[in-house]
Amino acid sequence: MTEVEETRRESEASRGDFQEVIDLLRKHQLVEQVVHRQDMPRHDLVEQLVHKQHLAELQKKLDAMHPADVARLLEALPLNQRLLVWDLVKAERDGEILLEVSDAVRESLIQSMDEAELRAAAQTLDTDELADLAPDLPPQVIEEVMLSLPAEERARLQSALSYAEDSVGALMDFDIITVREDVKLEVVMRYLRRLDEFPDQTDKLFVVDRTGTLKGVLPIKRLLLHDPATVVKDVMEQDIVTLRPEDKARDAASAFERYDLVTAPVVSADNKIVGRLTVDAVVDYIRERSEAEVLGLGGLEEEEDLFAPVIKSVKNRWAWLAINLVTAFIASRVIGIFEGTIAQLTALAALMPIVAGIGGNSGNQTITMIVRALALGQITRENAKKLFLKEIAVALVNGVIWGAVVGLFAFAIYHSVSLGVVMMAAMILNLLLAAVMGVLIPLIRYRLGADPAAGSSVMITAITDSGGFFIFLGLATLFLT
Amino acid sequence: MTEVEETRRESEASRGDFQEVIDLLRKHQLVEQVVHRQDMPRHDLVEQLVHKQHLAELQKKLDAMHPADVARLLEALPLNQRLLVWDLVKAERDGEILLEVSDAVRESLIQSMDEAELRAAAQTLDTDELADLAPDLPPQVIEEVMLSLPAEERARLQSALSYAEDSVGALMDFDIITVREDVKLEVVMRYLRRLDEFPDQTDKLFVVDRTGTLKGVLPIKRLLLHDPATVVKDVMEQDIVTLRPEDKARDAASAFERYDLVTAPVVSADNKIVGRLTVDAVVDYIRERSEAEVLGLGGLEEEEDLFAPVIKSVKNRWAWLAINLVTAFIASRVIGIFEGTIAQLTALAALMPIVAGIGGNSGNQTITMIVRALALGQITRENAKKLFLKEIAVALVNGVIWGAVVGLFAFAIYHSVSLGVVMMAAMILNLLLAAVMGVLIPLIRYRLGADPAAGSSVMITAITDSGGFFIFLGLATLFLT
Repeated sequence: MTEVEETRRESEASRGDFQEVIDLLRKHQLVEQVVHRQDMPRHDLVEQLVHKQHLAELQKKLDAMHPADVARLLEALPLNQRLLVWDLVKAERDGEILLEVSDAVRESLIQSMDEAELRAAAQTLDTDELADLAPDLPPQVIEEVMLSLPAEERARLQSALSYAEDSVGALMDFDIITVREDVKLEVVMRYLRRLDEFPDQTDKLFVVDRTGTLKGVLPIKRLLLHDPATVVKDVMEQDIVTLRPEDKARDAASAFERYDLVTAPVVSADNKIVGRLTVDAVVDYIRERSEAEVLGLGGLEEEEDLFAPVIKSVKNRWAWLAINLVTAFIASRVIGIFEGTIAQLTALAALMPIVAGIGGNSGNQTITMIVRALALGQITRENAKKLFLKEIAVALVNGVIWGAVVGLFAFAIYHSVSLGVVMMAAMILNLLLAAVMGVLIPLIRYRLGADPAAGSSVMITAITDSGGFFIFLGLATLFLT
Repeated sequence: MTEVEETRRESEASRGDFQEVIDLLRKHQLVEQVVHRQDMPRHDLVEQLVHKQHLAELQKKLDAMHPADVARLLEALPLNQRLLVWDLVKAERDGEILLEVSDAVRESLIQSMDEAELRAAAQTLDTDELADLAPDLPPQVIEEVMLSLPAEERARLQSALSYAEDSVGALMDFDIITVREDVKLEVVMRYLRRLDEFPDQTDKLFVVDRTGTLKGVLPIKRLLLHDPATVVKDVMEQDIVTLRPEDKARDAASAFERYDLVTAPVVSADNKIVGRLTVDAVVDYIRERSEAEVLGLGGLEEEEDLFAPVIKSVKNRWAWLAINLVTAFIASRVIGIFEGTIAQLTALAALMPIVAGIGGNSGNQTITMIVRALALGQITRENAKKLFLKEIAVALVNGVIWGAVVGLFAFAIYHSVSLGVVMMAAMILNLLLAAVMGVLIPLIRYRLGADPAAGSSVMITAITDSGGFFIFLGLATLFLT
């Protein structure tokens, strides 16, 4: 009991470990500073001893940590401390930790290693893991590692590398246990007992014939529940979800979610088993996708190493700022057209950002909803029209309500009824524009085969900004001057 | 082989099923329209026959669909068709389908059912599923169902209902198989064979003593690999991740992700087993969280039923628009201060949205990065300062580059060097403001125990808007007029 409790406490306290390591690093740094500042030979020995002691303590801590936790720690450290810790990690753990860190941090770690170290790290990995790491390794390292592999594994690695990044093939592994359909369960049990390795996450064995063709699956559950004298064929499941290596990872993830799968067989076009997809790979994929989505919405191209050099961070944020600058220039020129009107009535300059801003917010709400519905496959030709009309109705209601509010605001400050009315009319029209474009942009992008989410937010904001300025200042030019 | 292939095709073709059902619904609707329009008694019988035929076909399709797929279909249908399909679903499947649909759609389905139907649906569910559904059911239904439960299950349901929504307690289930540590594996095997039910996703058995205290876990893998004569105690794992019902679901999900878990035991403070958490619940949780995050960023309070009545949709978007309206009013008043300056130089009105807009984008980039780092636990007291300085540096570099671009833009259009210089200076200052606030807002919210993500984007945009207008128009007032 106490053992279990202690384990629990430890696993819970990974945050505590975290802090301890960081404290050790600070002590270490203090020592370094002292050594540096005083630089007196007779002190050196003492300082070096303290220094070594700290490193030894740090190494012990690191050895006890799960690779995923070491990875998290590395991500949280500034570059100099990160490389210090990385040096202390045992070489045989390098591979699994490299797999766990984010792409950006992985790059910084790989840069600090020479080819021999990289080769050694790569050689500790399974074929499917190697395939994940390969794009970040120098080509000559990959080549050498590949030559050192047995023919079968080399073929697997090559095929794994050939699949698109977001395909099932890129996520699958090769840890499959296959059995024949005409044997008894007790034979299967004996066979399993003779295996040296039983892959993690195995909830089913794959039933194949002599040619490797998938005939069904034998859930471990059935293996355990049925009489050992039963034949596999009589208890195997045939109503199963199978995947193809070229299937989209997104669709596979959605199948795992809907059908509560732990593993699923991956088969070729002629139904031969080629690998399996496991739920842990799916969980990682879902996380990464959702993070990429949030980063994209925030205007970052990819996840950023917290302590990346300034120039790298600038580059990561470049594209988004450049695009937004162009749309801002356009909006600015739209306003420029009406400078004469603004000169006559400067109140317009103060009021115009309200119309544009609320239009942008409203448009983004519509787009978010449509993009989500598209991702869930909920939009059909039949209901698209209904949806469109509904969004128009929502925009009208919102337009009248918020239009009245901003109209009153304008009237309260500038004491002009006509200004208030123009403001309200502009608000209604811009919200209608936002609704129409908020439905059309993602639907058209989807129909054209593009990702409906990416860039939709920038486009709608550009339209409701320029559109809002044009509508408001245009109405003002017509009716107020 | 063909059987497996067919299964695959079917599972793949759930989209096709989807379309078929929708086609059937359209046919059905056409019939209804015909009946309505002609309204001649002698036609009635024929029409009714066609009508019935369609419904029977539809029902057959629905019966063959997985509950998760029916749920997805219901979400994609407008209200009248949704209720028609819902009526056709077999009553004993109501419960599991209600669990799968989104909250908003669940509400619309529950509203269409009477108490007896709801009671019947609830009674088909396990305790943990019932707890998930309970918040949406009328109180008297819950009460009656509770009274009909055996004492043990009632106690479980009550405790499950007492946990916070985002806690492990709310996600766990009670499908645990426990064994004693002093028995042989062959005894465990025999015991399993006698069970009527073997819970899905079971990858380990829980080893407990007479009092229910967790002593360790017996992975199915070890049960299969070791000699049947081995005693559980000798092969059980004690180095395990355990959870408490009151642990945060977010932390549990992160543990599942890092340690590739399929299930984990949930124990009370005195280490007694109370339930287990499974990876399918974790996958659902991760999906829901990430969807909520994306919806929040888009300005929707919660997931919206695509075909919700207009008034409901308006309400769902209300809060965000209201908040943004307030910030827009403030920005408007900031501009109002400088109306005199604008009257002298209307170019300012056209240029000011550029400064505000780019500042907002840049601030959102910083906030997105900091919020992600906070969520991953990567920010410590030590590195916060480093991060802060880095963001300032990035803002300076961006400010000089983009400031020069917009300065040149202003000069090119208005042929005024001083206007260009003011524009550039305002851009640099606003990007610095964005960086400072982009780091401070989430960090302060986090320190205060608030969710660093929620609302951060609105706040930074409000600050960079009002701040950008103030900086730019203020500089212009000082140096250009």
